[in-house]
Amino acid sequence: MYKTFFSSGAGYPAYIGGGALSMLGRAAAEAAAGRKAAVVTDSGIPAEHVSRCTEELRSAGFEVFLMTLPAGERSKTLGTVSDVYGFLIENSISRSDAVVGLGGGVVGDTAGFAAATYMRGTAFVSVPTTVISQTDSAYGGKTGVDHGDAKNMIGCFYDPRAVICDTDLLKTLPEAEITNGLGEIIKYGAIADPELLAGVSRGLPSDAAVFACAEIKRRFVEADRFDLGERRVLNFGHTLGHGYEAASGFVLPHGQAVAYGMLAVTRLGERIGVTEAGSYGAILSACERAGLDSAWEGGLPAALPYIRRDKKSDGCSVDAVLIERPGAPIRKKLPFSVLADERNYR
Amino acid sequence: MYKTFFSSGAGYPAYIGGGALSMLGRAAAEAAAGRKAAVVTDSGIPAEHVSRCTEELRSAGFEVFLMTLPAGERSKTLGTVSDVYGFLIENSISRSDAVVGLGGGVVGDTAGFAAATYMRGTAFVSVPTTVISQTDSAYGGKTGVDHGDAKNMIGCFYDPRAVICDTDLLKTLPEAEITNGLGEIIKYGAIADPELLAGVSRGLPSDAAVFACAEIKRRFVEADRFDLGERRVLNFGHTLGHGYEAASGFVLPHGQAVAYGMLAVTRLGERIGVTEAGSYGAILSACERAGLDSAWEGGLPAALPYIRRDKKSDGCSVDAVLIERPGAPIRKKLPFSVLADERNYR
Repeated sequence: MYKTFFSSGAGYPAYIGGGALSMLGRAAAEAAAGRKAAVVTDSGIPAEHVSRCTEELRSAGFEVFLMTLPAGERSKTLGTVSDVYGFLIENSISRSDAVVGLGGGVVGDTAGFAAATYMRGTAFVSVPTTVISQTDSAYGGKTGVDHGDAKNMIGCFYDPRAVICDTDLLKTLPEAEITNGLGEIIKYGAIADPELLAGVSRGLPSDAAVFACAEIKRRFVEADRFDLGERRVLNFGHTLGHGYEAASGFVLPHGQAVAYGMLAVTRLGERIGVTEAGSYGAILSACERAGLDSAWEGGLPAALPYIRRDKKSDGCSVDAVLIERPGAPIRKKLPFSVLADERNYR
Repeated sequence: MYKTFFSSGAGYPAYIGGGALSMLGRAAAEAAAGRKAAVVTDSGIPAEHVSRCTEELRSAGFEVFLMTLPAGERSKTLGTVSDVYGFLIENSISRSDAVVGLGGGVVGDTAGFAAATYMRGTAFVSVPTTVISQTDSAYGGKTGVDHGDAKNMIGCFYDPRAVICDTDLLKTLPEAEITNGLGEIIKYGAIADPELLAGVSRGLPSDAAVFACAEIKRRFVEADRFDLGERRVLNFGHTLGHGYEAASGFVLPHGQAVAYGMLAVTRLGERIGVTEAGSYGAILSACERAGLDSAWEGGLPAALPYIRRDKKSDGCSVDAVLIERPGAPIRKKLPFSVLADERNYR
């Protein structure tokens, strides 16, 4: 039914596949000696998932406390994290208790950062519910929130004690949300698995695709837990993508923004001679099959000022990830003069 | 002039002694590849120290940005940390630049937490200026802020890249602040060095005393970096002390509060048969020689409700540190029924 892998860096299990939620109680009990579990979720998560989650925890003997954040990237702030702290304090959650994040990337990032910094670290169990979080953000220990327009500016590295990735939860997602998530799968295909890239199609991803992404991520994270080198290729499409997101006032969905970012940087790569011809076409084709929008050119000028403020920017250039061809990522410092020259995108 | 030691856990140097500030530029340049240094200080730090600090950094080639927080424990909040983030973003501080904390425990905790979580970790160099921070809080990698009345509730473990502990900076401290700091030296004497305890007297501590405290801390931190066991004895006097602080609305100085906490828990220890007779007298005598107030009894009932909410409390009991005699600490779960029984303090 589900597969398990262990991150050697931190040693936590990930249960991936349909029905994995039935592992939650046991995983939380292994993660936390205490008898309380604080479940942090958001208003977009269907009530049936929330009650499945709380029931699993209760049958493992936990007293369950539920906090519901407003859905959406706008919740990914220090203010929300402070509200979570207040909730934990109010309910006398101790550092031997568990914090469970049930939701997508925003819940994972926000609840994960709160758990990382509450009493200098409380056990965190992640239950991702979206394609993006199940394939990408739930693994690897990055937590963080935005600061104004500056995306993921505040955060730390903090591994969950377990990831419960139940692909059945994806079945209730709206179609647009699934399509958005395919952007992240295209990324994994583009940097590490040309077959995965070629197989992308509209609709729910297969368990095998979700597992493949998680495995690729595990490999890169194990090689470079603190994101000092190899792991950075996971940012393919993201540096430009975050610019698109910020320029839209965080209205543009993350996966769609990453798709724009991958398309733009791959077109640029072909123009400056880093990327083999045909690579842009392969990514464009995957985006179209997925149902993602591919009109990235319009948003690029608006995105550039935000890219300048990225964590990976030194003001003159930005550490970017390109591909030589699908499956072969390469890291490169891109000067802003090159990034801003529109002839490089024609 | 100064002594150096390395924390084996994290491998950072600490320069301790008169004149150590001359090491700041070099230490910051070793810690950070970037060319910017953000100095975070507070309004209570004499201008001469601030300019010494910025000059040292400039002569090492740094562009220096200065942020001054309002002095006092009331600044140790998430709001202040958020202001620091804003300052760092505004000045385009990158993750290869340095954050320098010049001040006492509040600056170290606040700027240290900001550095730990800005872009998921930016190099932090600590320049402690008070007796408490030079003997205790600058080492060991604990950062954190208060949340409402809940002291040090939010934070993480994040080692500085260097500690520049210039004991000459202590000479401008007001006498009351020095006296307050002696509370922390009494703690180190009580848990690990009866001679240090017996030698405590009013006024500026010797370089040898500062170094002895730092060495004792290093020993305990190396044995238990994440505060899961042995390191907890460093909390002697602190669990009750934090209760006194909170009950006073954070008006009571930290070292004075720790003195009350040590006195109360040692009297309790003698009454319940954990602590040898005479131990309370040895601590009381040191407090009196230091010029600390020893009228702890009055504040205890007000402190108890706050102790119940401590990180080390499970609601029924609290993990406390007592001594069997000076130099011999012992950890013990104290039920609140025992803590609250005033007969145990007579």
